[in-house]
Amino acid sequence: MSCQLHQFLAPSSIAIIGASKDPTKRGYQALKYLIADNFAGGIYPIHPREPEILGIPAYPSVSAVPAEIDLGLVCTPAKTVPAIIEECGKKGIKGVVVLAGGFSEAGPEGARLEAEGLRIARELGVRIIGPNTSGVFNLHSRMNLVGMPNVKSGGLGIVSQSGNMALSIVNDAAPGGPLGFSTYVGVGNQVDVRFNEYLQYFGEDDNTKVPILYVEGFKQGRTFLEVAREVTQKKPVVVYKSGRTEAGQASAKSHTGALAGSYEMAVDLLRQAGVTVARQADYIVPIAVALRLLTAPSSNRVAILADGGGHATIGADSLIETGSVLATLAEETRANLAKVLPPAASLANPVDVAGGTDANPGVLADCASILLQDENVDALLVVGLFGGYKLRFAESLGPIENETAIRLGALLRRFGKPIILQSVYAPFRTEALEALRSSGIPVHSSIEVAVACLAALIDYGCAKRRNVNDPPTACNEAPAAASAIIAQCRASGRNVLFEYETMDLLKVYGVPMQPYMVARREEDLAEVAAAFASQPAAMKIISHDILHKTEAGGVKLTLRREETMRQAYRDIMESAHAFKHNADIEGVLVTPMAQQGVEIIIGVSKNPIFGPVMMFGLGGTFVEVLKDVVFRAIPLSRSDAAVMLDGIKAKKILDGVRGTNPVDREALVDLMMRISALVQAHPEISEIDLNPVFAHDDGYTVVDARMILSSPLE
Amino acid sequence: MSCQLHQFLAPSSIAIIGASKDPTKRGYQALKYLIADNFAGGIYPIHPREPEILGIPAYPSVSAVPAEIDLGLVCTPAKTVPAIIEECGKKGIKGVVVLAGGFSEAGPEGARLEAEGLRIARELGVRIIGPNTSGVFNLHSRMNLVGMPNVKSGGLGIVSQSGNMALSIVNDAAPGGPLGFSTYVGVGNQVDVRFNEYLQYFGEDDNTKVPILYVEGFKQGRTFLEVAREVTQKKPVVVYKSGRTEAGQASAKSHTGALAGSYEMAVDLLRQAGVTVARQADYIVPIAVALRLLTAPSSNRVAILADGGGHATIGADSLIETGSVLATLAEETRANLAKVLPPAASLANPVDVAGGTDANPGVLADCASILLQDENVDALLVVGLFGGYKLRFAESLGPIENETAIRLGALLRRFGKPIILQSVYAPFRTEALEALRSSGIPVHSSIEVAVACLAALIDYGCAKRRNVNDPPTACNEAPAAASAIIAQCRASGRNVLFEYETMDLLKVYGVPMQPYMVARREEDLAEVAAAFASQPAAMKIISHDILHKTEAGGVKLTLRREETMRQAYRDIMESAHAFKHNADIEGVLVTPMAQQGVEIIIGVSKNPIFGPVMMFGLGGTFVEVLKDVVFRAIPLSRSDAAVMLDGIKAKKILDGVRGTNPVDREALVDLMMRISALVQAHPEISEIDLNPVFAHDDGYTVVDARMILSSPLE
Repeated sequence: MSCQLHQFLAPSSIAIIGASKDPTKRGYQALKYLIADNFAGGIYPIHPREPEILGIPAYPSVSAVPAEIDLGLVCTPAKTVPAIIEECGKKGIKGVVVLAGGFSEAGPEGARLEAEGLRIARELGVRIIGPNTSGVFNLHSRMNLVGMPNVKSGGLGIVSQSGNMALSIVNDAAPGGPLGFSTYVGVGNQVDVRFNEYLQYFGEDDNTKVPILYVEGFKQGRTFLEVAREVTQKKPVVVYKSGRTEAGQASAKSHTGALAGSYEMAVDLLRQAGVTVARQADYIVPIAVALRLLTAPSSNRVAILADGGGHATIGADSLIETGSVLATLAEETRANLAKVLPPAASLANPVDVAGGTDANPGVLADCASILLQDENVDALLVVGLFGGYKLRFAESLGPIENETAIRLGALLRRFGKPIILQSVYAPFRTEALEALRSSGIPVHSSIEVAVACLAALIDYGCAKRRNVNDPPTACNEAPAAASAIIAQCRASGRNVLFEYETMDLLKVYGVPMQPYMVARREEDLAEVAAAFASQPAAMKIISHDILHKTEAGGVKLTLRREETMRQAYRDIMESAHAFKHNADIEGVLVTPMAQQGVEIIIGVSKNPIFGPVMMFGLGGTFVEVLKDVVFRAIPLSRSDAAVMLDGIKAKKILDGVRGTNPVDREALVDLMMRISALVQAHPEISEIDLNPVFAHDDGYTVVDARMILSSPLE
Repeated sequence: MSCQLHQFLAPSSIAIIGASKDPTKRGYQALKYLIADNFAGGIYPIHPREPEILGIPAYPSVSAVPAEIDLGLVCTPAKTVPAIIEECGKKGIKGVVVLAGGFSEAGPEGARLEAEGLRIARELGVRIIGPNTSGVFNLHSRMNLVGMPNVKSGGLGIVSQSGNMALSIVNDAAPGGPLGFSTYVGVGNQVDVRFNEYLQYFGEDDNTKVPILYVEGFKQGRTFLEVAREVTQKKPVVVYKSGRTEAGQASAKSHTGALAGSYEMAVDLLRQAGVTVARQADYIVPIAVALRLLTAPSSNRVAILADGGGHATIGADSLIETGSVLATLAEETRANLAKVLPPAASLANPVDVAGGTDANPGVLADCASILLQDENVDALLVVGLFGGYKLRFAESLGPIENETAIRLGALLRRFGKPIILQSVYAPFRTEALEALRSSGIPVHSSIEVAVACLAALIDYGCAKRRNVNDPPTACNEAPAAASAIIAQCRASGRNVLFEYETMDLLKVYGVPMQPYMVARREEDLAEVAAAFASQPAAMKIISHDILHKTEAGGVKLTLRREETMRQAYRDIMESAHAFKHNADIEGVLVTPMAQQGVEIIIGVSKNPIFGPVMMFGLGGTFVEVLKDVVFRAIPLSRSDAAVMLDGIKAKKILDGVRGTNPVDREALVDLMMRISALVQAHPEISEIDLNPVFAHDDGYTVVDARMILSSPLE
């Protein structure tokens, strides 16, 4: 189903409710821009008394307008808004943009007004943008209701939770930039239309080639992810998410009242859905421009072409740090480079021409062509002086530089591989650099920015391929045996499954679990000891009154022989009762001691914004302190799970350190997929904690497993 | 003693050796610039045949010049250079700049030529800049021997291992930037004059206010650190160190043949010496400009003043991530802000004016004044639309904006606290923003860049104060008891101290050590067991043939009772002999098992470039994999040691996690200071490894200590 917003974000007619003759008022400015920009549709100023404003007939109310109206721009104060929405609804207006602040962001009275407005809007089928928004524009419809003058129309869309950030984005792209904008929406308080719906609109809007979103807090994160997954198959989506630190989150909250949520989790989930996340605000526009102009490559092997060692080195450093790799050049490539470059040139990647282009910058295009022909090269980064040879060396090189720029543009189109150029002369906007820009090659003065753009292209290319080739596996049918275990837990009045129930449930989903025995009385340990005669055992308390078993002295390890087990049993009972008087104790769970391995943690929790999310990390205090964990929304694809393993900073530990073997990645991916299926099939599960799992070079052992159901009221 | 370079980097007379009439030649260009720039001293073109070049009398050789010459610019090929240096030396020329490549960077023959040139230069007292350099300029002397046209003269100095990077720096500062340059030197192969000497020159050169260095590899790192420590007391020093990744290091090596060394270590040592390290190349110029224009604050409490919530949030996020803090505003400050701002404004830091400046940008200066008066505020970051109110809101605001810019400049001078402004309108260079720039306030379009500049100012202020208040403690006298232990080790033909020798040595330096006993035969264990009756013991092999005790099965833990100890002894002997047949075994060392604590590592190694360096980190594979360690050059100050504890990413572990107490930081600082003293007093020690040390909430236990002497030949 196509998005409702088209009906009024590209409107045929607009009412300006609260139109004004005062040039400092938004109700004047909006009107002025509509007229100045030759808005093609009907314009209806609404004013209680004025018969005309800026030469256009005005009406006392929308109901008095003798024509259909698609969009209402509401410029009046908060307290008037519910009544206006009602009138708009009765008139059949499809959407309103409410500029006024003083709603939920301002306190309880505002929140009441906001809710009232929403109730009426829902009743009458009116959609609300805002309130507390800086406005909207759709430059392809010549509709500028935000009062930013001189914005060039083009393919970048903006949805922003901050009007000033929208201005930032427009201005960053402005001075001589190649690209303009399509639609801007300030989301304001998101009382009705939210990021997910705006993104859907941008996905369907042919005028928008790259939507850019500035987000402080999502309200319907799960839906957003679903929409993003679809839209990113068609076009790249750039998100800057603010609120990385507690201070930033506090600031964002005071700004829009939106809960920011964990930054790193949001970034992980967005990237899973194919979204390009800009981690610096000043990278938003360069990245969006690169995504707009260039084709995302299918892999991450980059060639660097430099006319100086310093830039080659900085380029290599920056590139490696983004996770890309320096392409290994084919023998033939090196041989061909050798034909056009002097002997001192470095033919390994980075290629340093060592003065070989000083007298003829055209050699740079020769080299670029040779590099782009190499199948091992997915993208090309050119760094150094290009665009300034004329200034640096000789006036006479100017025409050759210009021609080289055109040749580079032709190479871009011929090979379809991204080319980005960094030039020391970028601030001078020389003729050659302008020619390069015109031919679609981004030019930056900063190597770091150039590399960030390449990295974004590579990430996008990989994510898009991953999501189309390996969509997450749906699993909505629960095996009866699994449902029975949950039902039994519920029936006994618990939300927390006993560990053996969790183990049984995991087994139903094909997770290999250790054998276990339950001893309900000390006497049972005779049989247990006989069963575990050949290996040491672990004993853990079973009690719904005791959640943290170790703290309660409820865990004993490396037990051998019946007498030791009996002693352990008695110790556990004593500690447990000391920990909690009258604790209701079922007994103890006895399992074999697990074979040691790399300690990992797999957790699932239900995020209020994003729904069920899986977390993966290594065990131990370091991970806790360094927050070295990675998140993915459930359901997962196998690729998602594999990417998670590589997503932690300390991933080398999985490859084996100090002489240990690498862990069995396939087995861990398999475990994650089974957990993902389990969580999907049982929406009543609110939390899973496999902590720790010992990862071995062949399989894994779940050492402790915990599962919690949502309380029946939820 | 003042630096020799002044004699020829601000020369009274220059010979151009290899002067030319061909405009593409350096020997022509240099001459042309000297003439065009009105170089005030003598200019002597040297050419075998030409009687004049560019209207200036030429001479067949420097010896033919009938005047004194300070500096020779050598434009001839590599093979001619040794003879030319000889002639220059005989003429009494103090320094030569050798442009040609083809020396040590090109292979063995070049290296021979380079060594030959150096030998002659040393003999005749000529200093060499280069070879393989892009040249030098000293704009205050109107000497431009590098052929970069139109460089503005000013206070920034450049020393660079890449000519293109020097161009980058000049160009980044160029377009409308407030600052120009003093001296540039391309260091080339650093055969004679090296970074340390250039830095000394810049330290003494009054025309240079901020030296900027692009470094691929230091050759005399230790001396550089010493010079930097002095220079940074007078003026800030900015270094960009390349070669962060292996790929970058390989590229740097192929470029200048210099060994890059560990990036993180170099950064740590530079920062210890007070140097400002730019981690991105595109931050070099903004940071240098901020250091030039603003006074470094004495602490890190920053106020953010924003006219929009989005920028406030991004500012807070970025600031916190650099390690600065949001200043807690005084009650009075908040009260005063409330007087000038509307009720919706956020008076906590970040201060968001919430539209309170839209009609009058002057209110921004009112707020700035209130914030700067607050003693809790060390620096001010203004973010948002300032400089564009005229464009955004009303033409009539233009004059008020301009006046506000002047008021902000006055506040900068009045309070002496740094102010940096980020403006959405920075790309437009509006009148108000130019006024702001003229009054010495840096303006950026990127919040991240603005914050990086503030962070650099804060870091510099802190480092300068730390280094002047708490210089490293010198310790050059070795106690006789300590020297005796080392002598005994040497006498027995070993470079590796036995663990008990290391323990004894550490004890001499006041490091509290565990008691130990040595058992040379199994029979000795009767006495040992008696002595350790009350606590479990650890047993480790003593053998100069076995360096890695654990791998050789040479360590047994938690031993109680004589029989267990005897068994452990026999096991150790058996394993050791299996590990190395005929291993020469002294016996075993028995110590009490250490009380558990936070596992830390303190190491010392002699870096070939930087000399003795201490490393601090936590124990375990995570630290290894994540390289979460910190380095400082020895000797340390107490502040250095304290900063090291805070320098690791996982520092929170030292504060206590999961209910444990914080470690005893004072004790660890004390331990580091004792190790620092020990290393200074015994230069023959090449390596120390205390691994692990258990840090307790009261003191620490050195669990394993290893010390290696340099081999007698070193």
